[in-house]
Amino acid sequence: MGEFGFVERVRRWMPPGPAHVPIGDDAAVLPVGVGCSLVATTDALVDGTHFRLDWSTPADAGFKAAVANISDLAAMGAEPRWLLVALLAPGTATEELLDGLYAGLREACELHDAVVVGGDTVRGGTLALAVTALGEVRGEPLRRTGARPGDVLAVTGPLGLAQAGVHVLLAQSPPDVPAEDVRACLSAHRRPRARVPEGRRLREWGAHAALDLSDGLYSDALRLAEASGVGVEIDADAAPIAPAVRRVEEAMDGDPLETALGGGEDYELLVALPADRLEGSGVELHPVGRVVEEGMWLVRAGERRPLPGGGWDHFHRSEAE
Amino acid sequence: MGEFGFVERVRRWMPPGPAHVPIGDDAAVLPVGVGCSLVATTDALVDGTHFRLDWSTPADAGFKAAVANISDLAAMGAEPRWLLVALLAPGTATEELLDGLYAGLREACELHDAVVVGGDTVRGGTLALAVTALGEVRGEPLRRTGARPGDVLAVTGPLGLAQAGVHVLLAQSPPDVPAEDVRACLSAHRRPRARVPEGRRLREWGAHAALDLSDGLYSDALRLAEASGVGVEIDADAAPIAPAVRRVEEAMDGDPLETALGGGEDYELLVALPADRLEGSGVELHPVGRVVEEGMWLVRAGERRPLPGGGWDHFHRSEAE
Repeated sequence: MGEFGFVERVRRWMPPGPAHVPIGDDAAVLPVGVGCSLVATTDALVDGTHFRLDWSTPADAGFKAAVANISDLAAMGAEPRWLLVALLAPGTATEELLDGLYAGLREACELHDAVVVGGDTVRGGTLALAVTALGEVRGEPLRRTGARPGDVLAVTGPLGLAQAGVHVLLAQSPPDVPAEDVRACLSAHRRPRARVPEGRRLREWGAHAALDLSDGLYSDALRLAEASGVGVEIDADAAPIAPAVRRVEEAMDGDPLETALGGGEDYELLVALPADRLEGSGVELHPVGRVVEEGMWLVRAGERRPLPGGGWDHFHRSEAE
Repeated sequence: MGEFGFVERVRRWMPPGPAHVPIGDDAAVLPVGVGCSLVATTDALVDGTHFRLDWSTPADAGFKAAVANISDLAAMGAEPRWLLVALLAPGTATEELLDGLYAGLREACELHDAVVVGGDTVRGGTLALAVTALGEVRGEPLRRTGARPGDVLAVTGPLGLAQAGVHVLLAQSPPDVPAEDVRACLSAHRRPRARVPEGRRLREWGAHAALDLSDGLYSDALRLAEASGVGVEIDADAAPIAPAVRRVEEAMDGDPLETALGGGEDYELLVALPADRLEGSGVELHPVGRVVEEGMWLVRAGERRPLPGGGWDHFHRSEAE
């Protein structure tokens, strides 16, 4: 059960909140003052599932836990402000491990102008970090719900680096590519950045909808479509593949395109905006498709077909895994 | 390592925040508008440590996870508003279990005028709920730091029910007491209430300091003293012991006074206020001691001695457990 399981459950169980508190966006929007909203999000990272301490240092894990949450704020065009951290740690957790986690949290906060203001540490069987991030947004937050047929879909940077990093870590031997390619992939996996200035700018620029690419373009484009009540067409021929991803994947007999489109944790923003707004925002934007009336489509080598795995079925299977 | 371990670690690692964001209160105070602050707190509850599913239903566990957090807001005189919930669940967790947890969260939110606005569900080895609660306070929040020598220490209700509930659950056979006594103790353990109206009123009434009794009067009075830079004297002869606690503990050869003073999870508020403000607030207040210049003292049967276990040493030992 992924995030969607929770969201569905909450929808079923909880009384509907005020109209300005929809559930299912990157973060909840909470009214706190005239012209100003708070956005709040929570994401938990579990050792062995969301990070591996044989692949990442404790500081990397702490850093990523902070970024995964700050990225949800970025997707709404909000300014990160405050983090609260609940840490579950097994009795065997060392001082060094805990100090490393906090050092990584601190680094990520400093980089993104946020500060940790509270926390709880409890003994648990599993090492896990549950982070809540709070941000502020003046004016209307950028939501998932505003994509309109005719909009261009674009991303804020080339895709696939984090997933290629995972492939490198899984491989028996390092790929025969320049060392800086491997470093770029590993760094994207271990130390992602949240696109805070990009989100803010795209909100001001009048983007219709956005979310951050945490689970990969396929999954996240479907989410955007569902939230907006539209269809999407992903243009694989146009998708920006990071050059390092191309070289690393080819050296490992992988598929650079699948890595770029299917791989998660890039934390680039996926935005829907009018075609005539693609240029001029000052944010690097790579078109990856368009918003259509309905359906989930992939255009590859000029051929248009339903998204791999059956679109919604694929999605629902993933959720049930 | 308890909450204090985290707080110390954060103090060491994090850059100092703005003056209005002290770490170490029941909740962080976050400025969000003119005359209005947000208070935010996070607490995690782990299966087997903070709740046991052979002692409590899943709904009880969800309820308590919400209340433990809302109680931190109550202690600052804040109005609960929003909860975010990160749920870690092992692969074996059933639908029934998860629905029960959420139903309990919902019930607690409804009772305390809050709403769940976000969440994350992840697979983890341990069943755990990390809840973040956000509340609003107009004017100055009630803090831990304002206790002054000469203040009276008081609690908002009789103590020990939740701990006596644990003793009943641990016993081989139920104590020979009226069934309603057992029910009162079990209910206090399983379905505590946060003292939200009491906290709000005591803030308006000019109480100097407050916190909620989560770890028991001994531990929490020490916390209040440390935060305020003062000493405390607990008057065991005056401490309000719930009648059901007296009967249940005596029937099980327990010590009603130790249960009342040492037992956690009552979620009553402990407040420090001027002696001439003890009456008239409209909140039920039971004196339990006084604030002194320094030291941690217990008065019992008219005799004044350092707090059991050595005061600070006792405290630091508990933390290292």
